[in-house]
Amino acid sequence: MAERADLDVVGIGNALVDVLSHADDKLVTRLGLVKGTMSLVDEPRAREIYEATGPGVEISGGSAANTIVGVASFGGRAQYIGKVSNDQLGEVFGHDLRSTGVLYDTRPAKGGPATGRCLILVTPDAQRTMGTFLGASVQLGPGDIDTRLIASARIIYLEGYLFDPPAAQEAFRAAAGLAHAAGRKVALTLSDPFCVDRHRAAFLDLVERHVDILFANEAEICALYQVSDFDAALSRVVGHCEIAALTRSAKGSVLVGGGKTHVIEAHPVQSLVDTTGAGDLYASGVLYGLSRGLDLAACGRLGSLAAAEVISHVGARPMVPLSSLTGSVIG
Amino acid sequence: MAERADLDVVGIGNALVDVLSHADDKLVTRLGLVKGTMSLVDEPRAREIYEATGPGVEISGGSAANTIVGVASFGGRAQYIGKVSNDQLGEVFGHDLRSTGVLYDTRPAKGGPATGRCLILVTPDAQRTMGTFLGASVQLGPGDIDTRLIASARIIYLEGYLFDPPAAQEAFRAAAGLAHAAGRKVALTLSDPFCVDRHRAAFLDLVERHVDILFANEAEICALYQVSDFDAALSRVVGHCEIAALTRSAKGSVLVGGGKTHVIEAHPVQSLVDTTGAGDLYASGVLYGLSRGLDLAACGRLGSLAAAEVISHVGARPMVPLSSLTGSVIG
Repeated sequence: MAERADLDVVGIGNALVDVLSHADDKLVTRLGLVKGTMSLVDEPRAREIYEATGPGVEISGGSAANTIVGVASFGGRAQYIGKVSNDQLGEVFGHDLRSTGVLYDTRPAKGGPATGRCLILVTPDAQRTMGTFLGASVQLGPGDIDTRLIASARIIYLEGYLFDPPAAQEAFRAAAGLAHAAGRKVALTLSDPFCVDRHRAAFLDLVERHVDILFANEAEICALYQVSDFDAALSRVVGHCEIAALTRSAKGSVLVGGGKTHVIEAHPVQSLVDTTGAGDLYASGVLYGLSRGLDLAACGRLGSLAAAEVISHVGARPMVPLSSLTGSVIG
Repeated sequence: MAERADLDVVGIGNALVDVLSHADDKLVTRLGLVKGTMSLVDEPRAREIYEATGPGVEISGGSAANTIVGVASFGGRAQYIGKVSNDQLGEVFGHDLRSTGVLYDTRPAKGGPATGRCLILVTPDAQRTMGTFLGASVQLGPGDIDTRLIASARIIYLEGYLFDPPAAQEAFRAAAGLAHAAGRKVALTLSDPFCVDRHRAAFLDLVERHVDILFANEAEICALYQVSDFDAALSRVVGHCEIAALTRSAKGSVLVGGGKTHVIEAHPVQSLVDTTGAGDLYASGVLYGLSRGLDLAACGRLGSLAAAEVISHVGARPMVPLSSLTGSVIG
C-alpha cells in the first residue's frame, strides 16, 4: 500500500524552449518538414531552419513540462524533471516553470550542448510543425531521478519523446520501476507518430508491462498498433493498459477504463490560433482529475477544457489559471 | 546637396530583448516600479524583478529597433545599429532583425555583460511598465558608427534611451554630426519622461542644434519644457525644430511643421492587448512617410496605423506586413 502522496504528478521529459514563428505551407515543405509532426534535428540543421524562418517568440516548452504546468494551473502539486544547460535559455526555462508553482530542481548541465530548442512553424491554419534540437536535454540520466521524489507522487508522467536520447531511456525505465515499487501509477504519452515508429517495440513492451495510463492521439495510437483506423486501435488498447485517453482533435476524445468507454466532445473554442500544446494540456486535465479521484468522464472534460484554452492563443502553456475555468465542467 | 540615398532610415539604439509577462498593479507597486514608464536597473535588481514575475515570453525589442522593423515592414530600406553580446539572446536579437529585412551588422561584444533585457510587466489595462538592464548595449561606441552608412540614409533616427550609456552619447553626437554633414535629416525620440529628466539640458541643446524631426509623447514633451499642459509644450516646440510629431495615446497625435499643425486621430483598434511598442511603431510610420516624401498629415496617419497594429497583440513589433495595411490611409 502506498504512503500518503505529497505530490499529485511528477513529469519527466525533454526540457526545451520553443521558438515560435509564423510560416506558410510552402516554407514547411521547402525545409523538408512534415506538417503537424515533430522531427529531430541536429544543431546545423536547426540553424538552417532558424535562419529560414521569420522573427520568433521564445517561450518555455517541452511536452511534459507543458503538461506539468497545466496540472499546477489546475491547482495540483506538481514537479518536473528535465535537463537544461546553464545558459540564458536554461535560465528562462527554469524561471518559467518555477513561477507557475511547479517544483523544479534538476541540476543544469555545464558545458556540452546548449539548452534544447524546438523550432515551431505555425501555419495560417493554426497547425504547428516542429524541428527539435535536443541539446542539453539528452544529458538527463538515471542520476537525475530522485527515488523519494518519485515515490511521493500519485502519478508519474513520462513523455514518449524522452525515449529519443539513450540515457533518458534508462532514466525513464528507472522512474517507472520506482513508481510501481512505491505503489504509484505510471502514465505515458506516445508524443508523436514518428516517435512511435522509432520506438514501437519498446513502447508496446512498456504499455504491456509498465503503463497504467496511456495518452495518444489518433495518429499515434494507430501507429502503435500499425492499424489504419481509430476503432481498430481502440479495440486493441482496451485491456492493454488500465486507462487510455485518446484525443481526436476537433472530434474530441475517447477515454477507456474500468470496462467502460467515454466519448468526450471537444470544448468549444472562440478562435483557433495555434494548436501547439493541445495534447500536452489535454493530458494535464486528465492527470489532475485522476489525481483528485474524479471519474473518467470528468477527467476527459477537464482535458478538453485545458486544450481549448491553450489553442486559443500563441504558446503551449495556459495564459489564465485553469482552476478559474473548471466551474462549468466539474461543477 | 546630398547624394542619392541608398537607405531610407538608419536607427541607432539600445539593443534589447524584451521579457514580457502579465502582472497586476500590486506587483508593479511592490517592485517599486512606476507604471507606464521605464526604469534603468542593474543586474541584481533585474534578477529581483525577474524572479518576482510570472512566466515570460522572450521577444526581440529595443525602441529604435522596433521602429526600424516597422520602417522595413512598410517597405522601407532600413538599417539598425546597436550592441548585443555574443550569447543566445544576442543571436535571437540579430535573427529577428535580419529576418524582417532590416540590415544589421554591428559587431557583438565578447565577454562583458550579457545582451541587454527589458523586463516588461503588462497590467490588465494593457499598460506596460519596464525595467531595463542595459547589458551589452552600453558598449556601443563611436567606433560602431560607419560614416558611409550614415551618409547613405535619408534619415538617421536616434532614441533618447541611447543617451543613458555614456559611450553611446558620443556615438549619438558623432552620428548626428555625420548625417548633417552629408545633408541628411536627424530624428530623435525623447523615449521616456524619466529619460528626459535625466538628460534635459543635453536634449534641449540637441533639439536646438541637431534635431530636424522630434518624436515625443505628451508626458515627454511636457517634461522637456517643464510645463504642465500639452498646449504649452506645443507652443514651445514650434520653431524649436523643423518637424515635431507628438503622440497622445487614445487622443491621437499632433504633427507640426512648415508653419502648420495637423491633428491626427488615433486609428481604431478592435481589442487593446498590450501598448508595448505603440510609440516606436508610430515613429516608423512617420519616418517611412517622410522618407517617401508624403505630406505630414499622411505621415501621421501611417504612424497611427502602425501603432494600432502593434497594440492589438503582445509584443512590440508588427505581426503582419504594414505595407499590406496602408491602402485605407494613403490610397
